[in-house]
Amino acid sequence: MSNIRHALSVKRADDFAQWYQEVISAADLAEDSGVRGCMVIKPWGYGIWERIQRLLDQRIKDTGHDNAYFPLFIPLSNFEREAEHVEGFAKEMAVVTHHRLIAGPDGGLIPDPEAKLEEPLVVRPTSETIIGDAMARWVQSWRDLPLKLNQWANVVRWEMRTRMFLRTSEFLWQEGHTAHETAEDAKEHTMRMLEVYRACAEEDLALPVIAGEKPENERFPGAVETWSIEAMMQDGKALQAGTSHYLGTNFAQASGIRYQDREGTQQLCHTTSWGVSTRMIGGVVMTHGDDDGLRVPPAIAPWQVVILPMLRDKPEDAALIGYCSELKAAIGAQSALNEPVRVLLDTKPGKAAAKRWDWVRKGAPIIIEVGGRDMENGVVSLLRRDRLWDAATGKSAFETPTREAAGEGIGAMLEQIQTALLDEARARRDANITRGVETTEQLANFYNSGERFPGWVEVQWARPTGAALDKVVEFLKEHKLTIRNVPRGGNAADGTCIFTGEPAVERILVARAY
Amino acid sequence: MSNIRHALSVKRADDFAQWYQEVISAADLAEDSGVRGCMVIKPWGYGIWERIQRLLDQRIKDTGHDNAYFPLFIPLSNFEREAEHVEGFAKEMAVVTHHRLIAGPDGGLIPDPEAKLEEPLVVRPTSETIIGDAMARWVQSWRDLPLKLNQWANVVRWEMRTRMFLRTSEFLWQEGHTAHETAEDAKEHTMRMLEVYRACAEEDLALPVIAGEKPENERFPGAVETWSIEAMMQDGKALQAGTSHYLGTNFAQASGIRYQDREGTQQLCHTTSWGVSTRMIGGVVMTHGDDDGLRVPPAIAPWQVVILPMLRDKPEDAALIGYCSELKAAIGAQSALNEPVRVLLDTKPGKAAAKRWDWVRKGAPIIIEVGGRDMENGVVSLLRRDRLWDAATGKSAFETPTREAAGEGIGAMLEQIQTALLDEARARRDANITRGVETTEQLANFYNSGERFPGWVEVQWARPTGAALDKVVEFLKEHKLTIRNVPRGGNAADGTCIFTGEPAVERILVARAY
Repeated sequence: MSNIRHALSVKRADDFAQWYQEVISAADLAEDSGVRGCMVIKPWGYGIWERIQRLLDQRIKDTGHDNAYFPLFIPLSNFEREAEHVEGFAKEMAVVTHHRLIAGPDGGLIPDPEAKLEEPLVVRPTSETIIGDAMARWVQSWRDLPLKLNQWANVVRWEMRTRMFLRTSEFLWQEGHTAHETAEDAKEHTMRMLEVYRACAEEDLALPVIAGEKPENERFPGAVETWSIEAMMQDGKALQAGTSHYLGTNFAQASGIRYQDREGTQQLCHTTSWGVSTRMIGGVVMTHGDDDGLRVPPAIAPWQVVILPMLRDKPEDAALIGYCSELKAAIGAQSALNEPVRVLLDTKPGKAAAKRWDWVRKGAPIIIEVGGRDMENGVVSLLRRDRLWDAATGKSAFETPTREAAGEGIGAMLEQIQTALLDEARARRDANITRGVETTEQLANFYNSGERFPGWVEVQWARPTGAALDKVVEFLKEHKLTIRNVPRGGNAADGTCIFTGEPAVERILVARAY
Repeated sequence: MSNIRHALSVKRADDFAQWYQEVISAADLAEDSGVRGCMVIKPWGYGIWERIQRLLDQRIKDTGHDNAYFPLFIPLSNFEREAEHVEGFAKEMAVVTHHRLIAGPDGGLIPDPEAKLEEPLVVRPTSETIIGDAMARWVQSWRDLPLKLNQWANVVRWEMRTRMFLRTSEFLWQEGHTAHETAEDAKEHTMRMLEVYRACAEEDLALPVIAGEKPENERFPGAVETWSIEAMMQDGKALQAGTSHYLGTNFAQASGIRYQDREGTQQLCHTTSWGVSTRMIGGVVMTHGDDDGLRVPPAIAPWQVVILPMLRDKPEDAALIGYCSELKAAIGAQSALNEPVRVLLDTKPGKAAAKRWDWVRKGAPIIIEVGGRDMENGVVSLLRRDRLWDAATGKSAFETPTREAAGEGIGAMLEQIQTALLDEARARRDANITRGVETTEQLANFYNSGERFPGWVEVQWARPTGAALDKVVEFLKEHKLTIRNVPRGGNAADGTCIFTGEPAVERILVARAY
């Protein structure tokens, strides 16, 4: 690899949105399907999702949840029961009205007018109401509680403006739903799952996040409390990477989830719900991508190490493949991040440099090239994707350990890369949170100063509600700003509310957001 | 456990259909959701599906496939391209026509007439056409072939008469789709995946199956060849447990999947598709269930061993739980079927006998009860779910090994149970295939003799096509019979066609079927 970068045509600093689209495409993560608002998740992108699924699923099982599966279709009447919920979702749902097609007058297919459903069905945008119905059947007594369920599924929210992974009409997610005896239990569980999400984001995806409570105006429709984890993208915008909701008795009331308590009295359950989605992959791209493509954190990389023998379609190839196979075996016998190392020996046809760049763009954490001369010398040429270039020389930063050293050192190196990506993202995030902004004028100026990637601002406020909050939200909207959350465990307030001048009660994060 | 059986109210021999429904419910596998044709898969049922998924997914990856994800929605126009395909599916699809709801004149929600889709979308019944579109974009040259993809997804086929797991409007499945250079490659791959299904059915689900080719009239709409694996249920009916299709160039033509061959000429790809679904769980129930409930083969049991301490809400409970925890650790350290043993220590409140019966009905392969006296004697009371009753005494067949012996012996015992279930099912299947039926009259008499569970009949035929085959199918239909398949590797024909009297060319299996 010479010192010429030829992975992408756009740099992050020049056009972040365009760069994002280019990485998605260059790393072979996903593409437009031709069906409105729906994407195709390609094998490398789906492989990352499978890794996230497996790691998060284990965390969800470790906290006592069972997976189950509930219907894709929800009768309209379910939505009518919870007023805020329908208000929040009715605007953007796919509605099934017929169950058969017939040939129309011009020969094309049309929905059969004879096969119109009596009650239209909605393609689930989220499953509180349908899972609530099941909980109402399953819960009788306090002995049945807590009931802790999780579902991996596709959901649909009709979107007018879509963006790969971040906002698509159909997306994949997990949604957890639990029912508890008391508000305290349910709130504690809401926080437990928030913590599971924080750990998954930071430890598995190397995404540093700030966990905190959403303000009233950003709550999930029908929730009493909504908590989120927020990650900072490289353009300084916030990405909500997961949410955990305490639903009070709202959905229990709507679905009739009742239990007989220890004294024999019928009570409503307190419920929670929480979800993360394929959106997280967008967060990985915008956090770890660079001007050469994607960098996938080792914990979620489908292949952590890719071995590329420099084949020449000659008889010597056999010896080279043999040399690389032994390397593969040595690496596969190592562990990293508590699992056997996932290593691919890529012998597909193609020029070595082109193949190397494919894997650079895809972001395989370690790429090992082996040529005839490497074999003669008993070494390999190893590239760490997180430090592709030598800062001093500007050339590609190949290391050339012996084959034995490469094999033995791979586990530790993968763990270093995992940590390095998290540290780099955290340092950048922390450097881009501004404090000390004390007036709305300062806040507006900060974001309108022309800086491309201004980051987040932490301000103090008096937690206004109702009309007073509406005014705040309106002001922020004018400047394309949103409140991200009230960081959990952050510094106490010690000043005045930036919006009202009243004594502040807490600190909030303000940012532009995806 | 006394010798009183009190698991189910219906015996298989008395009402097989009712027994099936009762096992589904008693084993907590699934229930009706209240949404037309859709079921809820409950945690124990979904746990079995997760096990099947994990084992089959590994087999699919081991044969070189990548998972990916394609849209839930398919534009109507996609279906219009492949004439047979639309003919086969258009009758039973869910059609999305609107993307928003509004309040109707009577206050309820209705689809918003302003939000009608220009082109209705179909909820995928299968994904040949949408994956074909992607293949057309991804394949350029012979170097891109074979392209081997798999998807785990939900699909919808509107069903008027539904039955849990066997026939529901929405179901879960995997669908594999591959593209190849030549007919030979594609046909070979069709057979390879058929073999993967056979191995999964027999080795993982302990379902003995007969792999073979479907007759022309039973082909997948648009396929050139359809192969299936067929399992015999305890009522003698056949269940098609998986299919593998060679699609020729039909779908390649419809979607434009072309490649430049080694000589530089544009060619159509030859494609395959193949799928198995949650229907397999219905097959497990009807193969391994008994009059006490379900028996889950160890390879797909979410918990292979359940330990039940006989708790009495007294201080002695702590010692008993300690004793059981050590047993759990010893068992968890064992392996069976190449994986660590999955063992649950169930300390939920409830009477010991009631809890034991819950696990008997659910079909946990091994149930270990431990009471105070067992602990004093250093033993445990162990039940194998596949031999619950002592044939000689009619009493429950508890074994009482020492705790150490129980721990050490568990892996081998689980493997014995896996084999025993397969052997039992295979012996029953083989005993219920009748040969030597030489006329249609004999065939009709065989099935109309009043025998409840007549099984399958192998007959010889001349492989009629077109109108001649229609006549055969019509005759069979009169007697509620179907042709299952032409067994692969079966005996050669040596007689005359039972339908036409011509020289026979092969043997076929005739059966009643789900």
